[in-house]
Parts: sequence; structure tokens; C-alpha cells
Amino acid sequence: MKHRIVVIGAGFAGLTAVNDLKGAGCDITLIDQRNHHLFQPLLYQVATTLLSTSEIAWPIRAILEKRKDVTTLLATVVGVDRAAKEVILRNGMRVPYDTLIIATGARHAYFGHDEWEADAPGLKTLEDATTIRRRVLLAFERAELTPSKHEREALLTFAVIGAGPTGVELAGIIAELAHRVLPDEFRHIDTRRARILLIEAGPTILPAFSKDLSDYALSALSRSGVEVRTGKPVTEITTDGIKLGDEFIPARTVIWAAGVQASRAKDWLDAEADRAGRVLVGPNLTMPGAPEIFVLGDTAHVESGGKLVPGIAPAAKQQGAYAARLIRKRLKGGDVAKEAPFKYRNMGNLATIGRNAAVIEYGRFRLKGWLAWWVWGIAHIYFLIGTRSRLFVALSWLWIFLSRKNSARLITQKETLKDPDAIRQKSVADDVEKLST
Amino acid sequence: MKHRIVVIGAGFAGLTAVNDLKGAGCDITLIDQRNHHLFQPLLYQVATTLLSTSEIAWPIRAILEKRKDVTTLLATVVGVDRAAKEVILRNGMRVPYDTLIIATGARHAYFGHDEWEADAPGLKTLEDATTIRRRVLLAFERAELTPSKHEREALLTFAVIGAGPTGVELAGIIAELAHRVLPDEFRHIDTRRARILLIEAGPTILPAFSKDLSDYALSALSRSGVEVRTGKPVTEITTDGIKLGDEFIPARTVIWAAGVQASRAKDWLDAEADRAGRVLVGPNLTMPGAPEIFVLGDTAHVESGGKLVPGIAPAAKQQGAYAARLIRKRLKGGDVAKEAPFKYRNMGNLATIGRNAAVIEYGRFRLKGWLAWWVWGIAHIYFLIGTRSRLFVALSWLWIFLSRKNSARLITQKETLKDPDAIRQKSVADDVEKLST
Repeated sequence: MKHRIVVIGAGFAGLTAVNDLKGAGCDITLIDQRNHHLFQPLLYQVATTLLSTSEIAWPIRAILEKRKDVTTLLATVVGVDRAAKEVILRNGMRVPYDTLIIATGARHAYFGHDEWEADAPGLKTLEDATTIRRRVLLAFERAELTPSKHEREALLTFAVIGAGPTGVELAGIIAELAHRVLPDEFRHIDTRRARILLIEAGPTILPAFSKDLSDYALSALSRSGVEVRTGKPVTEITTDGIKLGDEFIPARTVIWAAGVQASRAKDWLDAEADRAGRVLVGPNLTMPGAPEIFVLGDTAHVESGGKLVPGIAPAAKQQGAYAARLIRKRLKGGDVAKEAPFKYRNMGNLATIGRNAAVIEYGRFRLKGWLAWWVWGIAHIYFLIGTRSRLFVALSWLWIFLSRKNSARLITQKETLKDPDAIRQKSVADDVEKLST
Repeated sequence: MKHRIVVIGAGFAGLTAVNDLKGAGCDITLIDQRNHHLFQPLLYQVATTLLSTSEIAWPIRAILEKRKDVTTLLATVVGVDRAAKEVILRNGMRVPYDTLIIATGARHAYFGHDEWEADAPGLKTLEDATTIRRRVLLAFERAELTPSKHEREALLTFAVIGAGPTGVELAGIIAELAHRVLPDEFRHIDTRRARILLIEAGPTILPAFSKDLSDYALSALSRSGVEVRTGKPVTEITTDGIKLGDEFIPARTVIWAAGVQASRAKDWLDAEADRAGRVLVGPNLTMPGAPEIFVLGDTAHVESGGKLVPGIAPAAKQQGAYAARLIRKRLKGGDVAKEAPFKYRNMGNLATIGRNAAVIEYGRFRLKGWLAWWVWGIAHIYFLIGTRSRLFVALSWLWIFLSRKNSARLITQKETLKDPDAIRQKSVADDVEKLST
């Protein structure tokens, strides 16, 4: 019988592992709650009307169509039976494995304030992105309609919490939307008077970057109309606004880009995990005492050279590739005890600020401004899957660049402001199981 | 004071009226429940994974950005106060008018069986299209996962009710999806064994076309794997399937393309209407006794040359243009009693069958097959709004044509199978009003 590999999660780590196991002669089952692989680094562009959903997501089945050794299941995993070596699906089905790869990613976390989620959505899925897009666009619509000055000001205040790359990117594009794209489209409000706040508890924005790049990003953001507030944590978020220390700021649109929490793999495995819920893995990315179980990407606490490997796409891909390499070696009879540890190769830090500035850091090489933006853009088009997406994203960007108009501005689906069930967006896999049990 | 025109509905009729009133020196307010104008003739392509939502919808504000005489409101109308000449919004606001244009379209209707809607969604909005797309794609996913043969067969049976152009187009593309696009992507099921039923109570499909074109469509559909059943009405629709006379056909995916019901304008106006709820208008498209109120498009029962004008895009546009012309004449002091009646110019009938056949009828000119498909495609690209959409739709079609792969195949948002509120998709305007009251 062929060696059976079950991969949970078709993100960067899981999909890379599956890709790199091509021709290894295994029987692979790839399980995901969604039918698409998502290019998360560009998700903020869907949230801010630059790209449409279909440009950065691909049906997993279509990607793996030619891989007859891979079976794709749209299903929700609820546990792992380590004794029987089986993955348990919500509908009760069990999928047996010889090797298990868990790469189920992370969700945003609210540092013990889960009640903030309804008012401050985070950005991890396509639905998160369309939710944020809808809220941002509806805030302008509401402001156009309201007769109350006080209400109008709160509607035209947008607060982004957390000033890592995602927060910086979101704030930059929302500022451009308000200051450059929308002004001529409204008759009662001046969208240029919108306040865009970027809030960071730490002392600086983009803390992973060197000081001069962080300073550059700060001045570029200020120029494009973003108000940066560092050094004070958010202490409260309600429907009406946010509290910053003692100061209450009325703001109807709040976006969370501050923290993440790993998926529940640690519970499935009954494994040791760090504070963010990431499973502590050994140097070969397997769970201590279970060399047949790999945990990769945002779900794993991986160290390399004594430092925590960051939760970014290149790191996840490297881990997927490493796991595939190791499995191939083992299948050829390699000794588990002699496996070379995973080594993270830092591919640099990137972040864009608005529509024509970016910062790039790669070792001692640093780049900022419009040239960095072009390098960033070309790199991201290169990393997309398939010629079609590359062509369409490149054309979309070119169009926005030339026309100065963001085009992906549909408000779809009804807002479900206070329905935690809808906000948490249970997976579509629920529906599959509903009828398949 | 300027002449105040309120237009309700930014579909083909309303938007054409607004466009043609450019430079007329009026104060125009355009009210719609959604933030986008939708190109409905291609909506079936979103429902069947050929196009993505953003390719056939445009933000109304962006379209009218340069028209400083137009104010756009995202809001829901609940009534018209004819005595005070005011439109009443759900949030209580009143918008005064001198001339009122109502062009609020139609929804699908179930001939007194509203309970069928949950199991047999119709196709009128972007959300309808993504709902149908999600259900079609999930049916294949569920079939791949289920261990039951009986269940699998029901999941792989798709029934389209109503064989007008929309029904024919939906059935044709779903058949291609099952027979040509998906087969290589599944491991447990053979999607080629899916049954696609096109059901029509009347004796023929495409009844608006001449017999030879209708016959051609029938044979083209059969060749692409669609099972056409004419002459028997559907008597029951449940979650498990449909009843056709006495025969029960298990089918998990049912799509409604059989009937429409006009929007509620007749209630707002307390006007006479036909059985489909369309307001009976005079020869100048105004309400009898109220020359300042125009009712256009799918909301109106319009006759021309003794025949009912069909509810299609060209007819709606012609009515919008007529209304704008009449308003201009009146503003110059024209006599209401001497107005030339609206005359419908038949621009022909078109329908596509699958990916490379179509039928076109224009007076005595008839065309069928692949050439008709190309004429149809070029005509529709021409009618899209803006160079960007034309370019992207043309590229999408070219891509599908060359790669034989449909690309818009994302399953997003959770299915809400039995929640009538979610299924009826209340407008996003609800949310605007929630905070603007």
C-alpha cells in the first residue's frame, strides 16, 4: 500500500508541501474548510477596493487537477486520533494517515477581549476582506445621508489598530480612498475631511524594520493624511468608538490588525503550545515524540538560529518545502534521528504605504519610496498562481495607476453587525457536511 | 429654483434617464438600495462561474461622479406622498420632487408558491448569482464526500425551471461545467454523470423565438448534455427535489427562472397594475392622472403597437431615453396633451447555449451557431460600461475560450439554506439607515 499523507490546510505551507511531494508515489489527501487557496499578502487590497476577490484566490481543485495522487476534501477537521492515526472530520468520517501535516494557519486575536471582534473585524479570509470593504464604503454612504454633524464625524473616522505591515497598508489605502478617490463622488460630505487613525501600543510603527525605514513610513503616512498614534494601547472598543488610555475617540469603523492566535491544532494533538497557541515543534518541524506529525506555518512555533520564525508567507513556504523534502528522504529509508534541522532563510521585510511608496529590507539592503513600490509590485505578481491572475492583477494595478480610480467597490451581502455567528464566518464546509452525513 | 427630479432605481431605465438628462439644468436625486448598477444580461455568467461579480457591476457614484447635478443616495424607498410630492425613505427622510421616475425593476415570482424560494433561488441580484454559484459548486463537493449512492445521485441532479433565455443559458453552462470543466478535478465522483434538467411548462423552449431557432437550441442543449422536459409544470419543490406532474425527481440544486413580479411601485402609488404587479401607464409612460410620475422598465406595463413591451434591457433603456426627452420638452414649455407616445423599437432576441452557440433573431434576420455566439459576445462587450470592464470581460472570455477553464469559482459566505430573511437579501440600504436615523 502507498504511504498515506494527510495535509490539513491549503495555505502557503500546506500547498507547498503538496506541490513538492509530486512524484513521491504517495497517496495524499488535502483537507481544507474552504474551496480556495488565498494569497493573503494581497488581502488588504481586497479590503480596500483595489482588487476583487477572484484575483487573489484560486479553487484548490483547479490547482491540483493534474495531481492524480491528491484527493481534495472540502471539510472541517475536529480532531486527530493519534493512536489510530486518523483525522476526524466534523461529519464523523475518519481519514487515516501515515504522515500528517497540519498547517491550519491563524486567526486574529483580541488579547482576551473577544467581544471586540464584532466592532473591530480582523483580516484573514476573503469574507473578512469583503466585510471590511463593506463597512468602509457604508461609512461614507451613511455619512452622506445623516443630518447629524456629530454622527457624520464619527462615521468619517476610521481607526486601524496595530501598525505592522497590514495595519500600515490598510491605513494608507483608506487615506487615499478618502482623500483622492472619493471626494468628487459625494455631494453632502467632503470625504477629504475623513480622519484615518493608525494606532499602535508600541513605541514605533513597523517594529520589524530598521529605524530609518520606520521613520520614512511614518512621514509617508502623515503626508497621505494618516494620523499615527503610538505608545498607548486601545483599552476599549465599542460600536461608538475606541478608548485610547483615557481618551475616547468616536469612530464607527474600526479594523483590527494587532494580534493573531494559532488555529486549534494544539487541542487536536494535545500538544504543548506558546501563548499565541502555536504548537512547539522540534528542529525538524515535527511534534516532539511524534515524528509522523508535522506542524507548519502560523500554527507552529518554529525557531531557527535561536529566533522565532515570523508568520509570513515565505516562512510558511520554506517550511512546507522542508517537510516535503524530509518525507521523501524518510520514504527512501533515511534515519529520523539524523535529519538536518529546518533553517529559515530570511527573504526580507516588505510593506507598502499607499499607492506609490513602500519599504523593503533584505539583510543590509534597504529601499524606500516609489522604486520600492515597483519592486514590491513585481515581486507579488511573480508569486501569484498562474498566468491569468498575474495578468489580471497587473492590469488592475496598471488601471488604478493610470485612472486613479479604485474599481473593486461593490457592497455585497447584508451587514450582520451583531451576529457573532455570521461575523465568525463558520466555514462553508459546514454546509457540505450538513448533507453528507 | 431648479426643477427637481427624483429617480428611484439605477437599473437600465433609471440610469439611462439620468444620463440623458445631462445638461438639462435640473436638480436630480438618484435613489437605489444598492451601491452598484448591475449588468443583468450577464448575471447568469456570474452564477455559473464564467465571470466574477466585479466585472458586471459598477459603483453608481463612480458612474455619475462628474454629474454635479446628480445626488446619489443609497437608501430604501417605502412610499410616495403624492399630495406633498415627496418620496419617503425608510429612515423617515422625505425627498421632494417635481418629476418622479420610478424604475425599480422586478424580482422572481413563484406563482403563489413563495415557500419554494428557499429551495429554488432566482437570479436578479449579485447575491442571487453568488448564492446559485455556491449551491452548484457545493453540490459537487457534497457528492465527492458522501458515502451514499442515492444521495450522490440527488446531489448530481441540477434542475433549472423555466426555459426562457436565462433558463437556457444557465442549463447550458452548468452542463459544460459538469461535462467539460470539472471531471478531472474530482477523485470519487464522475461529474460527467451529472444530470442537468431544463424544465418548461409550455410546449417549447425559447418561446419568444421562431420555431427553427427554438429547435436548434433544443438540439444544441441535448448535445451538450441537458435533458429538456417540456409540457409539464412543476407542482412541488422541496429540499429533496421537484415534482413534475406525478413524477418525483430527487434534485438537491434547483434554480428558478420561470416568472417575475414587479417591485412594489403600485402600492406606493396606489396605481392600477396587471397580474405581475406592473403599473399600467399611459402612452407617454406616465401614470394616468399624474403626468409628473413616470414608471419605467420591468415595473411598468407598457404597450407599443398593441403589444406588451418585453422586460429586457434594450426596452428599459428606450423607456429611460423617452422619459428624459419628454421631460426636456416639458421644461421648454411643451404641451403635455400633445406628447408623442412611446414607441418600442424591437432590437431582436438573443440567447446563448453553452460556450460556443447562440441564437439571434432580429425581424426576419436569423442567426445560429458559433457565429451567433461571437456576435452576441461582441454586442455584450459593447454594452458594458467603461473601457475597463470591456477589457476585463473580453480577456476573461478569451481566457476561458483558450484554457477551457472557468475561473470565477470561489465559494464565499456561509450558506443560509433556510433563513428566509437572508435568502430574500434585504438591501444594504438597511444598514445605512440603521445609523443615519
